[in-house]
Amino acid sequence: MKKILTFAFSAAVSVTVAQQKPLIDYVNPIIGTGGTAHTYPGPTVPFGMVQPGPDTGFGLWEHCAGYYYNNPTIIGFSNTHISGTGVGDLGDVMLQPATGSVKTERGDEKIPGSGYRSRFSHDDEKASPGYYQVRLLDHNVNVELTATERAGLHKYTFPRNADSSYVILDMGHVVTSEKGKTIWGFIQVVNDSTVLGYRLSKALATERYMYYAIRFSRPFSKFNLMKFQERISVAHPVQGSGDEVKAVFRYTTKHDKPLLVKVGLSAVDADGALANLDAEIPHWNFDKVKKQAEDKWERELSKVTAVKADNKTKTIFYTALYHTMLAPTIYMDADGRYRGVDNKIHQDSNFLNYTLFSLWDTFRAEHPLFTLLYPERVNDMITSMLMHYKQSAYRVLPKWSFHANETWTMIGYHAVPVIADAYLKGFKGFDSELALEAMKASANAPFEGMEYYKTIGYVPIDKEPEAASKTMEYAYDDWTIAAMAKKMGKTDDYNIFLKRSANYKNVYDSKINFARAKLLNGQFKTPFDPLHMRYGGDYTEGNAWQYSWFVPHDIGGLMTLMGGRDKFSAKLDTLLSMKETVNDMSGEQPYDVTGMVGQYAHGNEPSHHIAYLYNYADQPWKTQETVHKIMTRLYNNTPDGLAGNDDCGQMSAWYVWSALGMYPVNPAGGVYSIGTPSLSSATINLQGGKQLVVKANNLSMANRYVRSIKLNGRPYKKTWITHELLYRGGIMEFEMAGKPVKNWFTGNDLEAEKMLNK
Amino acid sequence: MKKILTFAFSAAVSVTVAQQKPLIDYVNPIIGTGGTAHTYPGPTVPFGMVQPGPDTGFGLWEHCAGYYYNNPTIIGFSNTHISGTGVGDLGDVMLQPATGSVKTERGDEKIPGSGYRSRFSHDDEKASPGYYQVRLLDHNVNVELTATERAGLHKYTFPRNADSSYVILDMGHVVTSEKGKTIWGFIQVVNDSTVLGYRLSKALATERYMYYAIRFSRPFSKFNLMKFQERISVAHPVQGSGDEVKAVFRYTTKHDKPLLVKVGLSAVDADGALANLDAEIPHWNFDKVKKQAEDKWERELSKVTAVKADNKTKTIFYTALYHTMLAPTIYMDADGRYRGVDNKIHQDSNFLNYTLFSLWDTFRAEHPLFTLLYPERVNDMITSMLMHYKQSAYRVLPKWSFHANETWTMIGYHAVPVIADAYLKGFKGFDSELALEAMKASANAPFEGMEYYKTIGYVPIDKEPEAASKTMEYAYDDWTIAAMAKKMGKTDDYNIFLKRSANYKNVYDSKINFARAKLLNGQFKTPFDPLHMRYGGDYTEGNAWQYSWFVPHDIGGLMTLMGGRDKFSAKLDTLLSMKETVNDMSGEQPYDVTGMVGQYAHGNEPSHHIAYLYNYADQPWKTQETVHKIMTRLYNNTPDGLAGNDDCGQMSAWYVWSALGMYPVNPAGGVYSIGTPSLSSATINLQGGKQLVVKANNLSMANRYVRSIKLNGRPYKKTWITHELLYRGGIMEFEMAGKPVKNWFTGNDLEAEKMLNK
Repeated sequence: MKKILTFAFSAAVSVTVAQQKPLIDYVNPIIGTGGTAHTYPGPTVPFGMVQPGPDTGFGLWEHCAGYYYNNPTIIGFSNTHISGTGVGDLGDVMLQPATGSVKTERGDEKIPGSGYRSRFSHDDEKASPGYYQVRLLDHNVNVELTATERAGLHKYTFPRNADSSYVILDMGHVVTSEKGKTIWGFIQVVNDSTVLGYRLSKALATERYMYYAIRFSRPFSKFNLMKFQERISVAHPVQGSGDEVKAVFRYTTKHDKPLLVKVGLSAVDADGALANLDAEIPHWNFDKVKKQAEDKWERELSKVTAVKADNKTKTIFYTALYHTMLAPTIYMDADGRYRGVDNKIHQDSNFLNYTLFSLWDTFRAEHPLFTLLYPERVNDMITSMLMHYKQSAYRVLPKWSFHANETWTMIGYHAVPVIADAYLKGFKGFDSELALEAMKASANAPFEGMEYYKTIGYVPIDKEPEAASKTMEYAYDDWTIAAMAKKMGKTDDYNIFLKRSANYKNVYDSKINFARAKLLNGQFKTPFDPLHMRYGGDYTEGNAWQYSWFVPHDIGGLMTLMGGRDKFSAKLDTLLSMKETVNDMSGEQPYDVTGMVGQYAHGNEPSHHIAYLYNYADQPWKTQETVHKIMTRLYNNTPDGLAGNDDCGQMSAWYVWSALGMYPVNPAGGVYSIGTPSLSSATINLQGGKQLVVKANNLSMANRYVRSIKLNGRPYKKTWITHELLYRGGIMEFEMAGKPVKNWFTGNDLEAEKMLNK
Repeated sequence: MKKILTFAFSAAVSVTVAQQKPLIDYVNPIIGTGGTAHTYPGPTVPFGMVQPGPDTGFGLWEHCAGYYYNNPTIIGFSNTHISGTGVGDLGDVMLQPATGSVKTERGDEKIPGSGYRSRFSHDDEKASPGYYQVRLLDHNVNVELTATERAGLHKYTFPRNADSSYVILDMGHVVTSEKGKTIWGFIQVVNDSTVLGYRLSKALATERYMYYAIRFSRPFSKFNLMKFQERISVAHPVQGSGDEVKAVFRYTTKHDKPLLVKVGLSAVDADGALANLDAEIPHWNFDKVKKQAEDKWERELSKVTAVKADNKTKTIFYTALYHTMLAPTIYMDADGRYRGVDNKIHQDSNFLNYTLFSLWDTFRAEHPLFTLLYPERVNDMITSMLMHYKQSAYRVLPKWSFHANETWTMIGYHAVPVIADAYLKGFKGFDSELALEAMKASANAPFEGMEYYKTIGYVPIDKEPEAASKTMEYAYDDWTIAAMAKKMGKTDDYNIFLKRSANYKNVYDSKINFARAKLLNGQFKTPFDPLHMRYGGDYTEGNAWQYSWFVPHDIGGLMTLMGGRDKFSAKLDTLLSMKETVNDMSGEQPYDVTGMVGQYAHGNEPSHHIAYLYNYADQPWKTQETVHKIMTRLYNNTPDGLAGNDDCGQMSAWYVWSALGMYPVNPAGGVYSIGTPSLSSATINLQGGKQLVVKANNLSMANRYVRSIKLNGRPYKKTWITHELLYRGGIMEFEMAGKPVKNWFTGNDLEAEKMLNK
């Protein structure tokens, strides 16, 4: 042990020396803002509640995060965004600085019908963690943004010769890819530099309340409320409400002094928003807030230091790491109050409440990554889920929840593996008895086919859509309950859920070697086409080729079903080399199924573990080959540098894991499959001061295969490694080779699976 | 003093003997549910927050209170209603019991397109204070309703042979005479007999939140949510939201046992609604709740006892008294929390918060009546107004406010005379310094022409609509501030507002003897037609004939302007005998200007004091004649028994005052003009145990004139009397005559006016 500590120390020293420029300089928030990744470029802090940023449009799929790189104009800067989803929402409190003629719809003045959009150029735009800048060309206003956890700070530099400068507050704006809208918005001008309000909106979240407080650094000379619906007979209304209410704040800006605008948010009330703002930005020093945000990023990015790689790879890596910290987000006021999924206000000083759980995506690699890199947040995230359970009218854990709403998006009960993983890894900062209760309740909730699954062992497709996927994912989630129950000594629960975890076999058709949908009468549904994919069909955003591998807890069992090791690996070979299109019978573009390598779809989550499955079949070099291909071909330092929705960081988390040479095929239990690093060296700074150095000697584009591995100087001959072992710190040293090396290992991943099931 | 106490005692004894049946039996809530009065028939308790009742339609002027007597069908029973207004709102939490086929819009079952309306018959309908019953003919369900302060209790008796009985909860329903709608509604089925939720609606109030809790006496066997907008993938959603969300609760009712449904309300939150419900109806005894409500009415109606009159008059009188207790309403949870006009939740244990201040109407006679009959509520009502002032973004007192909204309806700042009246009468249970501050702030708020009024002494019509009315009403309100300031020793304020109180003269055109609109340049606006009336014109719901008399604080001054006593009374003669139509140049039906006696429009408030003005011109017999005519012709024991909007009880308060032989021409200061009683005897039970007996000896339809008055046995020879004198208790005894008696008095009302201005 002493030796390890010495390693750790020397690694830390080398970091200090090696680090030439800040890590934030390797983050490019523009990655993913084009293509289909749906990331946003605006600033935030790690896991921050507020994300001010530019919005370029709404209503199309490309607008899920508000900003789409190829759009030519900006409509304003709203203060909340979601990164990487397939449905849009948020966009609270949109502000747009502008110049020229502006008129209200009430009286003598009116904003021109075309709105207040402005063109912009990527040449005069800069995005980095904690900071964003762009020039609005039509208004000639330079916009800079930064943020704290609960407040955004906007800096507008107006042209010196503007006759009329103004800031527009648009409560009608919602970031949405579909039909979202403001149900009700409220603006109250408290004095000549303070505005309070809230809005109720409906988009991905059906019923979302967000309160705000705005402070301007200088008094506006005049203001107007527009399109408000209150019956106001007063000449100068100071408050207005409605679904499209807007305010225009006017300034004379015959000088260089920029205008600063603070926006505090709260899901609780406007007082909370103001208190958040005043607590977090008690001054008007933009650079100070920017520096604080940058420092927070630097601190979190420094969980991985001393990275040796070319600049492009380093940028892809740190941007991915950055993306994993954009969700979940804090959802609690500075005073500990928060809005629960019961739409009631709760107060708690014992944990930090998080929201935005895109669990169907993030249970796979992102939450396991948190246990490695951000363990200090894991207990609070789980407690947030448990509070959701307690507050939910349905008495289930979050499924796809955010901002006090359960959206019921996607399938499964994947809060369960997240909690189980943490418990199995020894996290103790949450109520494990309550957790098991919640996990069991979620696994027994009488909807989405569960009533059938519990009695006949599968979800019948004639009773419930996406039945094949549901059966398989339920079975996996059940295994994680069994594993946790076992560790807790709850034998009855263990037995029940272990049995359920084999239910995936009930939808596996060994005659054709695919998992497929079955009818209530026990017959498989026909006709059957393993390439067929349809939203709301037999599978969830995938087809039989993609979904048949989803048995992360029992690859051994799957292998047996498939006819043994060789047939299993041959089928993987076919998967990865066959034609890249799916047969879409719905006529709808299967926009989620992207990033194809054969029928492997890296652009969507069901495939994410598949490249590592060769490790179970004694062919780790094929895992290495495939993972290397995905890392180098499907991740890039460009706006469309991600192969599909980043999905709150899951796509990026896949990269972070893989770049470090491993991946959690089974997301719960603490076993990682070993792949092939994309970094020549990286030091993971573990909780408690220990370090884990991952080195890949002789790594190059050609040298992508593993020749051998040493752990703390001694040969390591397994294709897998445990979380527990890694967390002791030390050095894991890969020797890389230009050709497949087939004899470096003695134990494959089935060993680990057996260990977990012991 | 001893003698008076003896009187009081003997009067009390006679009451006990005389009172054959309960006073509530003399209340007919159907009065005013036809015609244009807009009262509602459902039960409530005095000043109660909850008013369950039948709704027969929405969207037309006749639907202001939800129920219109001539409509043939009932759409449901909502739990809040406003009595007597000219714009509709409320109608929260509408329930409809029904039988037959009902289907949701989600799946296999659907409510027929025509909705769930049912015919009903007035023959199987009963309305009395605290109780309402009707049979729904199409569903064959008997409905009974009663209420507490904060909860409604519904009793549904379904037919024994119904295959399918159900209760529909419709969150989309809003009582409205115009375009109101539910912005957002929420239903959560907590268990098989409990439902919670809220709705945000927009009608007269722009942004009104109401939370509710429902408990059913028996578990429903099944329920469905309909037209909900939440993305729910679960098979049996227990919560739903949207602008039209409904729920259907199903029962098998193969027995006689009725279903009871409790509905608790709160403007704070659903927990508050549930707590209100459980605090006020902790059992399932319908009759007990009904009895409690009836007892509360009996107690309040007993403020006037020992009434001698024919049954019809007694019914008209007690129904009027009942109507004066339907507004303002309590607006505070059982735990002291309430929603302020700032939309924030406040808690206060020092006063009971009231809302629904229809002040342009009720400052005239209803609030003065409260000082006489319900003095125990006056301080809290005023404190409620002061809290509104403190919480208002505009820093003004309520104008026409309800349910945490300021509607800005009508003109003037008539909270001011209400507060001044109470202060001048010695009410001390509110913060008088804060009150004066609020009154001055309201009288200086920079809108509705005040900026001009303060500088040039009138509101110019070319800058502000209804300028003539505004100038006159501002001047009166200003006088009341002066009067209160004087009593408080605030000489500066007194001088400022006394000066402003003469501003009515600035819009009086002595050449033609009418108050009329003036332009900013000092010229009167032309053309001019004293019969002309237009909404948003020179006057407020009236014309020059009606508005020129509105100088309640300076009839002496008005008389001088008009050319002296004789010309003044001759003009009154003309007013009351001329043609009864107004010249409406807008093309819009002047539906508020009703109940015509010449150009005197009893159906609307600006006329209400005019009949008493003869008392200032030494012709009290003409006051008596006119008042008697109005009482007997314009009040009736029929659905259309009121001549116009009851306006939260103002129309009824006029009757109560007049029936007792007096009226507050000047609503502030405690002087009442003496008219002609419609009751042969009535005992007013004053606070502190004293009694005031008003007797009218020899009263008959013919004997409508006053021959003489004795106060406590001694001749009383004034046409006015003070609140202070009345409040000492005793007997005021009218001798009635069949012809005008012109020499019974020595002092007229100008005397009182001088006294008040001394």
